[in-house]
Amino acid sequence: MKYIENFHDGENISDIYLVKQMSSAVTKNGKPYVNLILQDKTGSIDAKIWEPNSAGIEDFEVFDYVLIYGNVSTYNGALQISVQRARKCREGEYDPADYLPMTSKNIDEMFARILNYISDIRSPYLKQLLESFFVADEEFIKAFKKSSAAKSVHHSFVGGLLQHTLSVTDLCKYLADAYPMINRDLLISVALLHDIGKTRELSDFPENDYTDDGQLLGHIVMGYAMVSEKIAGIPDFPQKTAGEIKHCILAHHGEYEYGSPKKPAIIEAVALHHADNLDAKLEIMTELLASSQGTDWLGFNRLIDSNVRRTSE
Amino acid sequence: MKYIENFHDGENISDIYLVKQMSSAVTKNGKPYVNLILQDKTGSIDAKIWEPNSAGIEDFEVFDYVLIYGNVSTYNGALQISVQRARKCREGEYDPADYLPMTSKNIDEMFARILNYISDIRSPYLKQLLESFFVADEEFIKAFKKSSAAKSVHHSFVGGLLQHTLSVTDLCKYLADAYPMINRDLLISVALLHDIGKTRELSDFPENDYTDDGQLLGHIVMGYAMVSEKIAGIPDFPQKTAGEIKHCILAHHGEYEYGSPKKPAIIEAVALHHADNLDAKLEIMTELLASSQGTDWLGFNRLIDSNVRRTSE
Amino acid sequence: MKYIENFHDGENISDIYLVKQMSSAVTKNGKPYVNLILQDKTGSIDAKIWEPNSAGIEDFEVFDYVLIYGNVSTYNGALQISVQRARKCREGEYDPADYLPMTSKNIDEMFARILNYISDIRSPYLKQLLESFFVADEEFIKAFKKSSAAKSVHHSFVGGLLQHTLSVTDLCKYLADAYPMINRDLLISVALLHDIGKTRELSDFPENDYTDDGQLLGHIVMGYAMVSEKIAGIPDFPQKTAGEIKHCILAHHGEYEYGSPKKPAIIEAVALHHADNLDAKLEIMTELLASSQGTDWLGFNRLIDSNVRRTSE
Amino acid sequence: MKYIENFHDGENISDIYLVKQMSSAVTKNGKPYVNLILQDKTGSIDAKIWEPNSAGIEDFEVFDYVLIYGNVSTYNGALQISVQRARKCREGEYDPADYLPMTSKNIDEMFARILNYISDIRSPYLKQLLESFFVADEEFIKAFKKSSAAKSVHHSFVGGLLQHTLSVTDLCKYLADAYPMINRDLLISVALLHDIGKTRELSDFPENDYTDDGQLLGHIVMGYAMVSEKIAGIPDFPQKTAGEIKHCILAHHGEYEYGSPKKPAIIEAVALHHADNLDAKLEIMTELLASSQGTDWLGFNRLIDSNVRRTSE
Amino acid sequence: MKYIENFHDGENISDIYLVKQMSSAVTKNGKPYVNLILQDKTGSIDAKIWEPNSAGIEDFEVFDYVLIYGNVSTYNGALQISVQRARKCREGEYDPADYLPMTSKNIDEMFARILNYISDIRSPYLKQLLESFFVADEEFIKAFKKSSAAKSVHHSFVGGLLQHTLSVTDLCKYLADAYPMINRDLLISVALLHDIGKTRELSDFPENDYTDDGQLLGHIVMGYAMVSEKIAGIPDFPQKTAGEIKHCILAHHGEYEYGSPKKPAIIEAVALHHADNLDAKLEIMTELLASSQGTDWLGFNRLIDSNVRRTSE
Amino acid sequence: MKYIENFHDGENISDIYLVKQMSSAVTKNGKPYVNLILQDKTGSIDAKIWEPNSAGIEDFEVFDYVLIYGNVSTYNGALQISVQRARKCREGEYDPADYLPMTSKNIDEMFARILNYISDIRSPYLKQLLESFFVADEEFIKAFKKSSAAKSVHHSFVGGLLQHTLSVTDLCKYLADAYPMINRDLLISVALLHDIGKTRELSDFPENDYTDDGQLLGHIVMGYAMVSEKIAGIPDFPQKTAGEIKHCILAHHGEYEYGSPKKPAIIEAVALHHADNLDAKLEIMTELLASSQGTDWLGFNRLIDSNVRRTSE
Repeated sequence: MKYIENFHDGENISDIYLVKQMSSAVTKNGKPYVNLILQDKTGSIDAKIWEPNSAGIEDFEVFDYVLIYGNVSTYNGALQISVQRARKCREGEYDPADYLPMTSKNIDEMFARILNYISDIRSPYLKQLLESFFVADEEFIKAFKKSSAAKSVHHSFVGGLLQHTLSVTDLCKYLADAYPMINRDLLISVALLHDIGKTRELSDFPENDYTDDGQLLGHIVMGYAMVSEKIAGIPDFPQKTAGEIKHCILAHHGEYEYGSPKKPAIIEAVALHHADNLDAKLEIMTELLASSQGTDWLGFNRLIDSNVRRTSE
Repeated sequence: MKYIENFHDGENISDIYLVKQMSSAVTKNGKPYVNLILQDKTGSIDAKIWEPNSAGIEDFEVFDYVLIYGNVSTYNGALQISVQRARKCREGEYDPADYLPMTSKNIDEMFARILNYISDIRSPYLKQLLESFFVADEEFIKAFKKSSAAKSVHHSFVGGLLQHTLSVTDLCKYLADAYPMINRDLLISVALLHDIGKTRELSDFPENDYTDDGQLLGHIVMGYAMVSEKIAGIPDFPQKTAGEIKHCILAHHGEYEYGSPKKPAIIEAVALHHADNLDAKLEIMTELLASSQGTDWLGFNRLIDSNVRRTSE
Repeated sequence: MKYIENFHDGENISDIYLVKQMSSAVTKNGKPYVNLILQDKTGSIDAKIWEPNSAGIEDFEVFDYVLIYGNVSTYNGALQISVQRARKCREGEYDPADYLPMTSKNIDEMFARILNYISDIRSPYLKQLLESFFVADEEFIKAFKKSSAAKSVHHSFVGGLLQHTLSVTDLCKYLADAYPMINRDLLISVALLHDIGKTRELSDFPENDYTDDGQLLGHIVMGYAMVSEKIAGIPDFPQKTAGEIKHCILAHHGEYEYGSPKKPAIIEAVALHHADNLDAKLEIMTELLASSQGTDWLGFNRLIDSNVRRTSE
Repeated sequence: MKYIENFHDGENISDIYLVKQMSSAVTKNGKPYVNLILQDKTGSIDAKIWEPNSAGIEDFEVFDYVLIYGNVSTYNGALQISVQRARKCREGEYDPADYLPMTSKNIDEMFARILNYISDIRSPYLKQLLESFFVADEEFIKAFKKSSAAKSVHHSFVGGLLQHTLSVTDLCKYLADAYPMINRDLLISVALLHDIGKTRELSDFPENDYTDDGQLLGHIVMGYAMVSEKIAGIPDFPQKTAGEIKHCILAHHGEYEYGSPKKPAIIEAVALHHADNLDAKLEIMTELLASSQGTDWLGFNRLIDSNVRRTSE
Repeated sequence: MKYIENFHDGENISDIYLVKQMSSAVTKNGKPYVNLILQDKTGSIDAKIWEPNSAGIEDFEVFDYVLIYGNVSTYNGALQISVQRARKCREGEYDPADYLPMTSKNIDEMFARILNYISDIRSPYLKQLLESFFVADEEFIKAFKKSSAAKSVHHSFVGGLLQHTLSVTDLCKYLADAYPMINRDLLISVALLHDIGKTRELSDFPENDYTDDGQLLGHIVMGYAMVSEKIAGIPDFPQKTAGEIKHCILAHHGEYEYGSPKKPAIIEAVALHHADNLDAKLEIMTELLASSQGTDWLGFNRLIDSNVRRTSE
Repeated sequence: MKYIENFHDGENISDIYLVKQMSSAVTKNGKPYVNLILQDKTGSIDAKIWEPNSAGIEDFEVFDYVLIYGNVSTYNGALQISVQRARKCREGEYDPADYLPMTSKNIDEMFARILNYISDIRSPYLKQLLESFFVADEEFIKAFKKSSAAKSVHHSFVGGLLQHTLSVTDLCKYLADAYPMINRDLLISVALLHDIGKTRELSDFPENDYTDDGQLLGHIVMGYAMVSEKIAGIPDFPQKTAGEIKHCILAHHGEYEYGSPKKPAIIEAVALHHADNLDAKLEIMTELLASSQGTDWLGFNRLIDSNVRRTSE
């Protein structure tokens, strides 16, 4: 496959790309045409269909995978494709992994480790709660495996939510072992559940954008609601524990200014917040360093709030 | 009835008071005694039962109304009662209004006005939602009528939640009339619902303190959960409207730092937040001015964040 | 009239436009020309006079209304006019309402309602103060009717100050009725006066920009000074009331960070600040929603400090 | 004279003290008595007149200087005077300097230096403005010489405003010489005028507390108003300069959070703000160090926002 | 030994206590006496020597361990000792562990684990740097083993610095294993070194208070200086690595407002900051929970910035 | 010399310019070329060497002074040079003052004034410390004379550090004379030393950018380290004074948020911080006003945090 990052002026292309955006427009002299943005995992490019009603242009929609014939030229300093023919492809003609950012880890292996954590939970109520999501709820499992952990900040790729959840849970397991005051079952449980609201806050890839409820309510409150609903379905779930689980989810951003309506008040909430923050910050640094080269300073990063540098050998 | 604010050194008292706190203690030479705090609507006073096992001291508990025989003396500069006899009273022997801070307005009249607002709602779904609380849910109605709107800040009296809710709704009706972009049905509905979480955040009078879930979750999220549950029980409730109602409740404190996990994003949420804040601030000023005299400066008030003064005639 | 928003490449225009900006320039080969920005109420457009000394180009200045003959072309992706002839117009040849953003309400009716409020004031001193502005001061009245309430934030159109003042006063009347601790006469008076400094902070339309004193002093202090001067001319004006009026004006932004040198310390100042803020926020939302379409999210708004959405039907 | 800081239990005193506070009270058995706080420049002490109607107790009021006969005893761990006789004294019987905190510098010499600065001003308008205060306005001059520069923070003694003004002006003269962009006449003028509002913000010694207008308006705006009024009385005063003077006064606290409604926008306003702040901070340190001994750390000081230490020799 | 927390009114005591404070005073009638504060690991108590020159009162100083004969009485509501005899004790007569807060872990075992970490370092320069402190510098080792990690916030006991350092290093080892971008040698090294400035910022127990340089410079900069000095003594130490080590120490508080003059700019500095913060927060929670009982809310904690609760079983 | 600010389209140039940046690139059809940025003291311009391997193009590097033959054209609205010939020049062929921003004052005269200050110091230890830098350390003196005081904010020209240091010291001398509590020797010494870390934080002109250690450590800590090292070499340097000097340097930014790890705790540190800030702010205003014309408002300045205006005559 010819990746977009390798396109150059003057060449012809004939390969499958994902349609990220599509809109109709009219030229100055009144002729309709179509604006596209095509995407693969290496980047995106503008494309124009100047003859939308011609024979070679078949019907397709945003987020379809489309076989594009066209040629590349430069316009206003950027490359652009004039599309001569376009045909919507069927699943199987393409590998989505070529079009979407994807975790470098194995999704099934990661999910197996999640299930392992659950099998180690001793409290029958907490185990039942976790299984109601990660074992019994097919739809949830499918969404959880695919979701990113963020729109753009960190882990913004397919499998990102799973990878982040596992990484936070690993760290929480370490903390539960190192600090005896921590209730291990509770901390592991809330680590596994803390970001499940993201399966509904963000739409599926390739869109991966905030949903309407995502913007109106946010993943913290949405995850709280999902957990509350499952708990309500478990007979005799201890009320105190229910309050603590919900509190840990509501407080996991640690500060009001980051959208937590409560600040951590129990030790597991304190631990979860810091584990979440620590994984996020180290993943941001990791992605930053992985996407750059050389040992120079990499410029100011808003999330780290500092100019950032690669460590010398 | 002899009110606590009128007690003085040396007098004997024999009247019914509310037991606000009670604890056992031991004197230096090993004799057990009981510490009490007695309360009526004019104030509170320390009391000691030096002979807890004597004939005249019958069994009672915190928040009981107790007939106290004793005499008042001064200790360390403050008045104190030595209790000689104590007997728990039955409902009917006393008027709770003498012991609890109470709204000066008529609770039933206020509640009737709430129902009036509901009957004016045109959207059948919103009306059904409101009725599921204010008409159909006996337990909720009972709690709603009794609750305060806060532990201490403002409207911290029986009926305070009802009074505040009505006052905010009145103002929201004004705003819906004055600003045509506002959806009147939606704004009136969220005004009526915005603080219902307080029925669970604070325990009943005479305690009126934060519940465990109140501290762990907060009334904003608790109210959101209560509304979500009722909406889930209404067939075909429009999903967009559901998101907007929930958003208005989550955002009604207006700022992250005041515990709102979301900031107002639709015009009704903006209006509700400001109406809530305006009523709170004017009620704080009203209570401050009502509880003081003279035209001098009243000192710094933390909530108004200024030294405060009564307006001249 | 041909409005600017309807111009397109290649057409000839011959209509009257307001000259918003004008500057002289020299081409690379040393030939002088003139840069203009022309404006009507639908937008603005660049224009060039390539032959400034030719016969058809008569003298005019910034903020003149000028009859323009020219043709429209595209340069660097934007439309532009090459001006062939230009003639300054006299009052009467054009309707200023076609060139300036203008309130959609009737200015005289709004002003009549202001006078109505004044006639209801019972305090003779307050009435005399208000009349010294709104009845006796011709120059003030003329400026007050024309002013915007802001350079760009909200109510930034002719009549905007009048509309905002009336809207705040209406809300204050509601508050004075609803909260008995409020001194109605005082609150209505300061509502009417709170933004009068804006008649001097901003220059007249079509400029509508900060004056020198506007930037050095600000409308809060300028309004305070205007009121102080009028009060000084009213015999026996009660000193306490004078202090309270001045305080309400100085404190009406509510917070130091918004330029108020004092925070509200009396209940009328608290009410005025919140009424002013509430009207501003609801007008911002109203203008935002009115200027957009569809039910999608409208993007982040700096003043609302949130991504903003239209409410569903 | 016997100073209050030297009183001890059991001694009799018969000397003149200032009555700082006075209130009537009633003993438990209904007998009226009088509470006093007496003050001299070394401190203050509680006093009681147990027989207010007895022969030796003559009439006096708060802030009178009163000859007190009484004896000192200990009550609740603090010293207290039982007053047997009391007589109001006439001016001449006492030296106010014994009762009020007072600048250690010579007031007349300091004022002469102020006049010297004025005589060096070259701009006739600025000179006229300064003279309208410091030469022509007897009442102002009297108040200016007596005022403190603050209720308690720094320079809170008779002559403090004069001393602070001179110190800031000296520093501004240095700056005008060192930085050629500064307009010397303008900076010296606003240095002399920047705090004149304090003559009205604070009441006279011995009270030295905020006046009603002081709290409602603040010295920044009051000083601005005083200057505006005098400028209005000077024919042909240049309008630009008037705006700049007013701006420097309004902006001299430098930040909104310190009550400046504007931030410094011209170089003289920048210089004035920093000179004012620098003198305040160094005077705070000077007073702190002067009032303590030893080389140990002196504890946390809120204004310096640090634990503070004396420099080693 | 009779611990201070068990004292009661009227009993005689004869045991050894640490003298935490000592000062001379004079009674009202001119008789000299001595004020003491005595301490053991359970608390502290006021003591008075009314006859400082009597036969039984031998010489001793602050921080001596003194055998006290006296009797306990109540004064102003608190217990107090009247000392009849006092004799300074020699080392061996008492066990300092009875008088000082002490880590519950074994100091030598903890230190052995530190050395273990050092032996695993592969970089010869980093190993040499660490050995210059933890192997070669006797004085440093002695101080490091004894120091607390703070005056009062957390780990404020003998061995606290060692315990905190080890805990942070353990966590950093976990992070170095879990996040491959991290340079393990560098992160372990700076974890071991990050708080060594505390050996000079705080004086030894029993005082454990800020030193003069501790207050003037702070442990961050002091630790930086200690490391810089050792690095300067190691030939050919890589300059880039030296800068990174120093940066990690300077940035380990993560934010300017917590006294870090730089914010973390390399991934190891990010990891160290979060590991340090996480251990501090979990130790604060652990100490809080260990020092209280019951499952009630424990009240507001300033460092956690929340009301805090024990987790239910 | 033909300065860059005077270039215009179409002319040929043949003069010496400083090469500020240089990078290789490839055209679309694979032909290598070189991008340059050329600079003189009036500005900078893009240049292209389309034939890098042609005869007239000799070898040179970034920061070389190069004789350029080329012609000026317009590309994308900006001027650009096509370089035909280029030759590296030797020292002597050009005057660096034509290429670098340079103080308008005489460097040697300023340095002589520094030495004068040192000769007036009475404390032998402080004098020795200052001489160890300003008399004995050739390398330091050379760097100190050349350094700017900042990358871009203020005094960002050759000699800027010297000019700023002298200006702050002059002001500190004034303060030491005016405020008797100040230790003159100490304040003058730390004024001279406060910014010496900038000789290592910023690289030499023409680069004048942050060094690696500059970014990792910052000039505050670097200056502290430089002073500590020199003090360690002076026998018997008083320890208290050493702590105070180091503290003044560490605290001279005054606030944590500006990178000071300590806040000023002694009066000399307070004075130094304010003197440093005052000179910076007045120099910013001076440079702003000097680089503009007219009396209009100059727009918002981030460092002054206000829209800024020139003062009227």
